Amino acid sequence: MRILITGAAGMIGRKLTARLMQDGQLNGKAITAIDLVDVVASEWPRGVTPLNAHVGDLAAPTFAAGLMAAKPDVVFHLAGIVSGEAEANFDLGYRVNLDGTRVLFDAMRAARISPRVVFTSSIAVFGAPFPAVIPDDFHLTPLTSYGTQKMMSEALLADYTRKGIFDGIGIRLPTICVRPGKPNKAASGFFSNIIREPLAGQEAVLPVPRDVVHTHASPRSAVNFLIHAASIDGGRVGPRRNLTMPGVGVTVQEQLDALKRVAGDKPLALIREVPDDTIWTIVKGWPTRFEARRARELGFEAEKSFDDIIKAHIADELGGRLPQ
Amino acid sequence: MRILITGAAGMIGRKLTARLMQDGQLNGKAITAIDLVDVVASEWPRGVTPLNAHVGDLAAPTFAAGLMAAKPDVVFHLAGIVSGEAEANFDLGYRVNLDGTRVLFDAMRAARISPRVVFTSSIAVFGAPFPAVIPDDFHLTPLTSYGTQKMMSEALLADYTRKGIFDGIGIRLPTICVRPGKPNKAASGFFSNIIREPLAGQEAVLPVPRDVVHTHASPRSAVNFLIHAASIDGGRVGPRRNLTMPGVGVTVQEQLDALKRVAGDKPLALIREVPDDTIWTIVKGWPTRFEARRARELGFEAEKSFDDIIKAHIADELGGRLPQ
Repeated sequence: MRILITGAAGMIGRKLTARLMQDGQLNGKAITAIDLVDVVASEWPRGVTPLNAHVGDLAAPTFAAGLMAAKPDVVFHLAGIVSGEAEANFDLGYRVNLDGTRVLFDAMRAARISPRVVFTSSIAVFGAPFPAVIPDDFHLTPLTSYGTQKMMSEALLADYTRKGIFDGIGIRLPTICVRPGKPNKAASGFFSNIIREPLAGQEAVLPVPRDVVHTHASPRSAVNFLIHAASIDGGRVGPRRNLTMPGVGVTVQEQLDALKRVAGDKPLALIREVPDDTIWTIVKGWPTRFEARRARELGFEAEKSFDDIIKAHIADELGGRLPQ
Repeated sequence: MRILITGAAGMIGRKLTARLMQDGQLNGKAITAIDLVDVVASEWPRGVTPLNAHVGDLAAPTFAAGLMAAKPDVVFHLAGIVSGEAEANFDLGYRVNLDGTRVLFDAMRAARISPRVVFTSSIAVFGAPFPAVIPDDFHLTPLTSYGTQKMMSEALLADYTRKGIFDGIGIRLPTICVRPGKPNKAASGFFSNIIREPLAGQEAVLPVPRDVVHTHASPRSAVNFLIHAASIDGGRVGPRRNLTMPGVGVTVQEQLDALKRVAGDKPLALIREVPDDTIWTIVKGWPTRFEARRARELGFEAEKSFDDIIKAHIADELGGRLPQ
């Protein structure tokens, strides 16, 4: 079992790599090598499994073609630039998020390898207005270039799979929360900030009303989705290869109630409400809750409650220790 | 008012050109020139409006860039290869139907012109299974490379419009019936053959059961859709720029009943039922009826009955004469 991971230096890529090295196997088969691809060099953990690092631009055909020499059995295609960057830099977004995907897919076709391809799409493929709960057969009308590029990549994945070029599964990730690391300027950042920062004894700003509803899954669940997508029977999936992942749909108030249940009153005192119309306008266009029936039926599992999401963060990022 | 038409030598392109030359105006503005683009040279009618013919490959950036010198106010982007050809030739399909569209769109961006762009998409963006009536918010899960390329082009059109690069409207055409000309080997050909051939005193083969339901619009309606899409207020359309067109949803039996009402018993005797499992399998995957509510609300109009579709064929293709 040889594995190729694009975007390996990103947050999810690093967690996936660590998990695969810890498991030593995927879908019951021993992992013999992992090829890690990103545009930036990165430090990788040492272990039993040989790791091969590749630094380069996926949209460059010769680079993508060279990666196929590893003859991967499973490709996790996580590479991409984020929503804000794709919106600010139109050409770069299409080059990285669309052309990079297409060149990678065409490299597999040219090399005549037919791996399982797991592609991380996003709920950004959806655009407002929405029903209260978004069903699996709701249309894709993205309101960002990032969402457009993910939608187009999903379409390629389904068509290349239908033609037997490879065996793809696209997973639409909900917002990943609690995102580790420093606060960033992403409009969605506050969903994580209001949990992570108070747990670390730091102040956090809440820029939107407490009745905002949003769907979350932990980084741990994101990795579980990827592993499950790599193992699932393609025949059970059928021709509709892109699946909306499950998650925990909650209001901001319910996030804060969970924080209080898990960590007591003290963190809540560190949250300052500072309404921000710019962020509020963006957030209003985002999807709220998903049915995700197909994904659940196919065995994808997220946390059952936001309490569980906070507990996963404490276990995975804080060494299991609650704040003093 | 300057107009650019890609795929101008095709059946719809020729009818659109003739209509624009006859009208002499579009959206209340006098047409000063029409630029006609196709991969093949063609004879064009003479008239008052200057016609400029261009022969070339839209996916070649220099060719597309050169077309922008005409500074069109309206671009009708009809160019593309058909479903069967895109399925048989994977690379050609992506090159013509996806890259050709993207290069054309990028040429407008580079030339800093911002025309109304009317793009002919297709109901091939949908894939079975379907509800009895397909609503406007039904997801796109094409089961052909052609449908995939149309879906991806729709996504580009919406995003380029959102970014203000141009002002696009995508129209998903139902099956065009009665298609003039000779019978062809397209799986959908029989829907037209069973009307056109008997009206011309020729035999036609019906390869599927008479209870098959399908949605049709005449070539005349297709041209009306294009003209209406060129004139419509973009502000009323909002960010969801791709619209499923209305049509007449009927069973094959209802098509034949209409033929009898319009042209008597004689044509019906020329139809031979020769079941064809290959065609039947393809047809089973096709959408049946569409709600098309948004398009109707925006003023797009198709025929009211299949009788009207047959009458349009007799008027437009047979000089208004019923068969003897």
